[in-house]
Amino acid sequence: MPVPSSKPNLLVRSAHPFNAEPPPDRLLASPVTAQADFYVRSHGDIPHLDPATHRLRVGGRVATPLDLSMAELRERFPARTVIAVLQCAGNRRADLQTVRPTAGDPWAAGAIGNAEWTGVALADVLRAAGAEDAAPHVAFECRDTVDMPGEGRFAYGVSIGMAKAMAPDTLLAHTMNGEPLAPEHGFPLRAVVPGYAGVRSPKWLAAITVQDRPSDNHMQQRDYKMLPPDVTEDTVDWQKGVTIDDMPLTSAICQPAEGAVLDAGRTRLGGYAVATARAVARVDVSADGGRTWTQAELEHDPAAPWSWTLWRIELDLPRGRHELAVRAWDSAGQTQPALPDDVWNFKGYLSTAWHRVHVSVA
Amino acid sequence: MPVPSSKPNLLVRSAHPFNAEPPPDRLLASPVTAQADFYVRSHGDIPHLDPATHRLRVGGRVATPLDLSMAELRERFPARTVIAVLQCAGNRRADLQTVRPTAGDPWAAGAIGNAEWTGVALADVLRAAGAEDAAPHVAFECRDTVDMPGEGRFAYGVSIGMAKAMAPDTLLAHTMNGEPLAPEHGFPLRAVVPGYAGVRSPKWLAAITVQDRPSDNHMQQRDYKMLPPDVTEDTVDWQKGVTIDDMPLTSAICQPAEGAVLDAGRTRLGGYAVATARAVARVDVSADGGRTWTQAELEHDPAAPWSWTLWRIELDLPRGRHELAVRAWDSAGQTQPALPDDVWNFKGYLSTAWHRVHVSVA
Repeated sequence: MPVPSSKPNLLVRSAHPFNAEPPPDRLLASPVTAQADFYVRSHGDIPHLDPATHRLRVGGRVATPLDLSMAELRERFPARTVIAVLQCAGNRRADLQTVRPTAGDPWAAGAIGNAEWTGVALADVLRAAGAEDAAPHVAFECRDTVDMPGEGRFAYGVSIGMAKAMAPDTLLAHTMNGEPLAPEHGFPLRAVVPGYAGVRSPKWLAAITVQDRPSDNHMQQRDYKMLPPDVTEDTVDWQKGVTIDDMPLTSAICQPAEGAVLDAGRTRLGGYAVATARAVARVDVSADGGRTWTQAELEHDPAAPWSWTLWRIELDLPRGRHELAVRAWDSAGQTQPALPDDVWNFKGYLSTAWHRVHVSVA
Repeated sequence: MPVPSSKPNLLVRSAHPFNAEPPPDRLLASPVTAQADFYVRSHGDIPHLDPATHRLRVGGRVATPLDLSMAELRERFPARTVIAVLQCAGNRRADLQTVRPTAGDPWAAGAIGNAEWTGVALADVLRAAGAEDAAPHVAFECRDTVDMPGEGRFAYGVSIGMAKAMAPDTLLAHTMNGEPLAPEHGFPLRAVVPGYAGVRSPKWLAAITVQDRPSDNHMQQRDYKMLPPDVTEDTVDWQKGVTIDDMPLTSAICQPAEGAVLDAGRTRLGGYAVATARAVARVDVSADGGRTWTQAELEHDPAAPWSWTLWRIELDLPRGRHELAVRAWDSAGQTQPALPDDVWNFKGYLSTAWHRVHVSVA
């Protein structure tokens, strides 16, 4: 069972498949998250692929099908680097589970990371295949195998729309923070679809198919959809769900940790905020559960629009117990709902209520 | 005092300047709002301009300054039509005023409308002036005069960024729903900047200046900014506010009206939802103040991305008093905050909490 042998930095949420996230304070270590600190979401065993024999096939409604080795992919297309956050659609699911149980692993606020991805533009590959206007959907098929009760074993697959596939920052990446992808991050090749939920940036990528319909894979059709609060596993009509692509505005407190006991005096707080296609305009931090707010200082590289925004603030906390809270605002004046109950759904996706951390000052 | 002589359809929120909105059920009469039903927001007296002599000047950092009559504008540039919602940044301010007082008129949910605008693309005019890459800001100056205590009298002016000015759907419009603009809607020429707050679509447009900085007009610099809840009129630092351009996700119940007394049985509910640059993915309606929700049917023209989404639903309401509520979700899984207190600011802008209407069934 090829679980990564050494992931000392990560908190394991599920051993099989291997799903793990860093303690939240690791996310503040650097604007770009080290591979060892980057959350791992897998749906089956982690493949260990040979880059010398791995191939990427491009087919479907294309004028010129392609069948490329990793060396050919690198030689034939210009290198492109994008700094982008990737985030699991279930990040912060544990907050929803305080309302009512949900399906899925109990992710805290660490199923997210920000990396410098290098590879080639998917658009360049699609153009080489003569596929840029051929059909509205681009499907990915991968080398990991999902074993799903009632559905048997199948290769992981999803799809994205052609417009997003042709966007210049949508990559086929072989390199993460200047290093080859680790096996658990998709070695030797993965998609990176900035702004979209991590599910649409599949790892161990083997085939791209240009087609008239979205992928018919379970992952695209019967999972990773936005569902109303009254829908249950028994009543769900997946065709009525909205496919989760772009992720909603979110933020989290990464420091101090839940339950921390702090010394009196100045306390440093920090965390992240992500507005995907928009900019984070403001981050409000509360030390009284959201009754009053103070604005944090923001750190964001304007040359990296898909990067997250890190925020920091120092507060004087008096003795006693405190509920810290954070909420972000985007450039369109949109903000996060206050309560997990406001966004609850049985799959536990898109958990974007104010993030709260409880601390005491001795 | 040239107040529109006959606005029988509108509820007047301020006589001088003339600010008025339709009763909300008028917004459901048609996917496109009649001029007579369209909210009016003015900052001074309403000019009555002569189209035979009105001119549009384009200057600043341009290669070729322009000075165009209305006839020349129509002759020289191709006509372009866009269906777009316009919304006051203060729409639904009255909801915020139930929390604490704010500045500004107590708009209900009618400071919004959806129209078919015809004119020319601002991008075409800027290209003709050789201005498309000349500088990052495009300032508008208008023929209405604002009289502001402490600031004296000045011509209304705002600005938008060059990228938005060059977007193909940003118009200089002379026609609204196939008719000349009414005087109160900007006759003979206004800007229409889809998705942005109404303040950036100025009426009675006389001059466009391409420049290195945003407009230094009061309207751009010291008003229409997003401000934190702790900021007051006495403490505001306008430079720290975020300029309100793109509007946040919102929705409202237009039928039944607040305080309505209904017959028992099926009740028709309807209203609007707007997600500006994104699509409205879902509208949830509650008959119990937000404890449980049902999904409404949506009506949206996919060929008109800047149009609003109208929603309708029929509910069986039992005898008694009910708090109806609505909230929208956009295609990124973003939704509206629950409470006006969650978005309160002293200017009363961006009032986008769940909209609530109280009815009783006899």
